[in-house]
Amino acid sequence: MPELLSNIIKMIKPLDRGAMAEARTRQNQLTKPWGSLGRLEELSIQLAGIQGKPIPQVRHKAIITMAGDHGVVAEGVSLFTQEVTAQMVYNFLSGGAGINVIARQVGARVIVVDMGVAVELEPSPQLLSRKVAFGTQNMSLGPAMTSEQAVKAIETGIEVVTTEVARGLDIVGTGDMGIGNTTASSAICAVMTGKPVAEVTGRGTGIADRQLEHKVEVIEKALAVNRPDPEQPLDVLARVGGFEIGGLVGVMLAAAAHRIPVVIDGFISGAAALIATALSPELKDFLIAAHVSAEAGHQLLLRHLGLKPLLDLGMRLGEGTGAALGIFLADVAAKVLAEMSTFAEARVSEGDEPGN
Amino acid sequence: MPELLSNIIKMIKPLDRGAMAEARTRQNQLTKPWGSLGRLEELSIQLAGIQGKPIPQVRHKAIITMAGDHGVVAEGVSLFTQEVTAQMVYNFLSGGAGINVIARQVGARVIVVDMGVAVELEPSPQLLSRKVAFGTQNMSLGPAMTSEQAVKAIETGIEVVTTEVARGLDIVGTGDMGIGNTTASSAICAVMTGKPVAEVTGRGTGIADRQLEHKVEVIEKALAVNRPDPEQPLDVLARVGGFEIGGLVGVMLAAAAHRIPVVIDGFISGAAALIATALSPELKDFLIAAHVSAEAGHQLLLRHLGLKPLLDLGMRLGEGTGAALGIFLADVAAKVLAEMSTFAEARVSEGDEPGN
Repeated sequence: MPELLSNIIKMIKPLDRGAMAEARTRQNQLTKPWGSLGRLEELSIQLAGIQGKPIPQVRHKAIITMAGDHGVVAEGVSLFTQEVTAQMVYNFLSGGAGINVIARQVGARVIVVDMGVAVELEPSPQLLSRKVAFGTQNMSLGPAMTSEQAVKAIETGIEVVTTEVARGLDIVGTGDMGIGNTTASSAICAVMTGKPVAEVTGRGTGIADRQLEHKVEVIEKALAVNRPDPEQPLDVLARVGGFEIGGLVGVMLAAAAHRIPVVIDGFISGAAALIATALSPELKDFLIAAHVSAEAGHQLLLRHLGLKPLLDLGMRLGEGTGAALGIFLADVAAKVLAEMSTFAEARVSEGDEPGN
Repeated sequence: MPELLSNIIKMIKPLDRGAMAEARTRQNQLTKPWGSLGRLEELSIQLAGIQGKPIPQVRHKAIITMAGDHGVVAEGVSLFTQEVTAQMVYNFLSGGAGINVIARQVGARVIVVDMGVAVELEPSPQLLSRKVAFGTQNMSLGPAMTSEQAVKAIETGIEVVTTEVARGLDIVGTGDMGIGNTTASSAICAVMTGKPVAEVTGRGTGIADRQLEHKVEVIEKALAVNRPDPEQPLDVLARVGGFEIGGLVGVMLAAAAHRIPVVIDGFISGAAALIATALSPELKDFLIAAHVSAEAGHQLLLRHLGLKPLLDLGMRLGEGTGAALGIFLADVAAKVLAEMSTFAEARVSEGDEPGN
């Protein structure tokens, strides 16, 4: 394994149990019945364990939205044409996309990264140009990328996070843009979970029944041609992945290495998480599943990862939109722990020990 | 029916179908696959219909948290003693309770109303003193309140909203505080849904099995003694309700009359919604169920109302904490509709017509 990658993986340590115990004790002293803030309480304790602070902080927030194109779109797997990937990147840069609106609302900066859009993009101060190549190859005919490209994609994700850490980063959300990337993600999901392709393949941008059948066939062909081995996660990424997916693998690993919680978005981020947790099982504790998307297979994918989504709003946009909402909940969870009064401070009589 | 109440009910008109159609058309022009923001899209369309604006606005936000005491606590139905109601009101006023923290986070003001706390509260500029009485009577021995008090409680809720409308109000959330109020709410829920008491009675602040059995018996006794008739919602409120519950009935009716969306919190707000929608079936379209709480019976209650909760985070604190999170999602939904670019504006190629 390349050095940067293996070093980052070695940096990922277990959660801080001491900080978690302190956070739990404080939750039970706050002016509310035991456990009455449910998953917000659990989330605050996870954040404490990740950050290694009894009272975690979610002030500096970033969504890293990575874009890449997919050779497999030549097979007709999407409602949208490939040019839309680049057009949407420009939309991100001008602030008009869904992720821009929601990120503004939650106070998160959006980092847009060209990981491998099929065309040359106009330079912009807000765009990180980290193109690994001009789109992947058509995975139904052969590997989507070379092994070197897969590693480069992951390393790029690591470098993006390292830069963001220097700017101040308490939490990171993952986002994606790439016409055709639910096809690559379904392929990864089928390999890594061992489930039939049809069970983990959905409508993406909204294809109809016949096109869905075709998409399943294309993915089955890609798996037959490439024979990816789930025991070789880097190789899975190379054979049936995507540049933005590889970048997100790097983002997740590097964030965990820096003890920064990672809020994962939908199906594409989930596919990246399957690769990343195969590289580092310790990573799982650093992941927060923002939502279960409407994309078929996402629920199964999250179950496989052992993650319970915070939200179920029927969303399937990607870009990091679900992750941004998850970051909001993490922020609320941290503020509850930090700012609520204890029974003693507020002079409120404690209840009896709670029942079962 | 008293004049103020019947006038408010007459003011509640159907949703604005024209505004909803315009909002839906715009959603389909925004730079995302059709329907890909799921419930956020539906929510924006509901907001448009309520406010009568194709692009609704969620700028001025308030949580109205109403407090009241319950004579039935003498039967030993809670882990906490009655003094906690007053203590928590002071906690609200000093900004240290869960609702204060979450409301700050979503930019909502918190209006604290003493609807019937059992003790005299120290005056405060932030406290609305609207005490109907010093707590309800013990409903297991007779009616919780008189018919006049039930009407007064509702009218108080109406007046509170009228004042808030004058200060600027785009959305309102309901909240409650009152030791013993899950007992009253379960009684209301059993009457209005026709379900057995045991099915709609939960652990409240966290009571154990034996105390839960006792709570069910107390409620069954209250229903046997009072024989409330579900066809007479005001009478149900008087016999087995609470002052804060009556106040919230008024809040919901008045908000709908003023075309203001109402985000309802958990089980106690749900019980108020059962009474309020029985008084005005049109009200239902103005309600947004923030979350399904961990309290047994809440899911059933929401199904009876025909409302689908936005969140399921295992919360059961009350105070309006769930409603505050729902207000955040409503704000996001409105901002998405208002601020996202259309395909034409962003020069993004539209996809084919979506499939099924």
